[in-house]
Amino acid sequence: MKTRDRILQSSLTLFNEEGEASQSAVDIANVLEMSPGNLYYHFKGKDAIIRALFDDFEHEMRIILRGSRGRITSIEDNWVYNYIILEEIFDFRFFYRNLGELLARYPDLAVRFRALMAEKRQTINNILDELSRRKVLHLGPRMGDVITDQILSALTFWLSLDVIEGGHTEPGTLIHKTVFAIMALVAPHMGEDGFDIMQAMLAHYDQMVN
Amino acid sequence: MKTRDRILQSSLTLFNEEGEASQSAVDIANVLEMSPGNLYYHFKGKDAIIRALFDDFEHEMRIILRGSRGRITSIEDNWVYNYIILEEIFDFRFFYRNLGELLARYPDLAVRFRALMAEKRQTINNILDELSRRKVLHLGPRMGDVITDQILSALTFWLSLDVIEGGHTEPGTLIHKTVFAIMALVAPHMGEDGFDIMQAMLAHYDQMVN
Repeated sequence: MKTRDRILQSSLTLFNEEGEASQSAVDIANVLEMSPGNLYYHFKGKDAIIRALFDDFEHEMRIILRGSRGRITSIEDNWVYNYIILEEIFDFRFFYRNLGELLARYPDLAVRFRALMAEKRQTINNILDELSRRKVLHLGPRMGDVITDQILSALTFWLSLDVIEGGHTEPGTLIHKTVFAIMALVAPHMGEDGFDIMQAMLAHYDQMVN
Repeated sequence: MKTRDRILQSSLTLFNEEGEASQSAVDIANVLEMSPGNLYYHFKGKDAIIRALFDDFEHEMRIILRGSRGRITSIEDNWVYNYIILEEIFDFRFFYRNLGELLARYPDLAVRFRALMAEKRQTINNILDELSRRKVLHLGPRMGDVITDQILSALTFWLSLDVIEGGHTEPGTLIHKTVFAIMALVAPHMGEDGFDIMQAMLAHYDQMVN
């Protein structure tokens, strides 16, 4: 692995496990058993590392969002797709565990995060439209916008909510719980199939978590 | 009005309108046309003012939460009650617009915020239980917990979401929108009445916002 990639991978692990705020460039160099000077040759301080990690996250998330086009045609597709999004967010969880503070500190990233959020909103909207067109969902007037907001909020704040409440939930459980919560937003609008599908997802959830 | 109360009221207005992070104790004294020394006689710096404002918020929110006991017996009660909670949060919106950063800075307030959140969770749960007992709601297995989580998340992050998306929504609109979103979580579980009630709430929302 190239030194640059090794620095990014170790920094990501460190930030995710110890929290980003408490780590310095020297801490990162120590973990890598590298001199601060050598680290500085690749990245001009911690800020540059954070921006490079955001580049990676943004790139991967855009691929995931664009990959949904025309491919989410059933409620099961949507269910799997939510796992894919949440696992991507989880890989870069240090951003989301401390979102407000981080965006306040990096206004340039706040602008890019906002653009990514707008693309996420559009993707959710498109998926709900497609599922409605296929008669999988039966959304009353304007319910599409309301559910889009709720899903967007769940995807953005699932880690912040856990942090505020103490941050003790095991990661796998938290992902399963969040996917289930998102599907629970959609299921009541599936007509008679909704109840059975929720029961099947609940059974899956119990099997995964216990 | 006592000087102490006047300081708190002006600080709250200043923090809500200009953001808390950018304001110093000297800025507060300037707004009050008071010497920094006189301000310091009442509060030993900005931190003490923030803690006193949190005392007020916590006290008022507990009264609101406890006031729900036995009083929310219909979906209309629940609807009005959500307005009461959101308006209280809005009065202290500087906390919520910057929640993660603020709680990281004041670990003592993070502990108290967590306790208040637990009481909020319990209150929402009790309301859903009471509405189910009265057959206003028909919740499938475990849906009570899922909806409680969703309502709690909406109540906690409605202002953060707006900040991340640019913070341009007019406050009144944002409150109406959030109440409508919360009711939209509950309405699909009301059986046949749900659709009509959502239509009535949508009409009210349109009337208020436009």
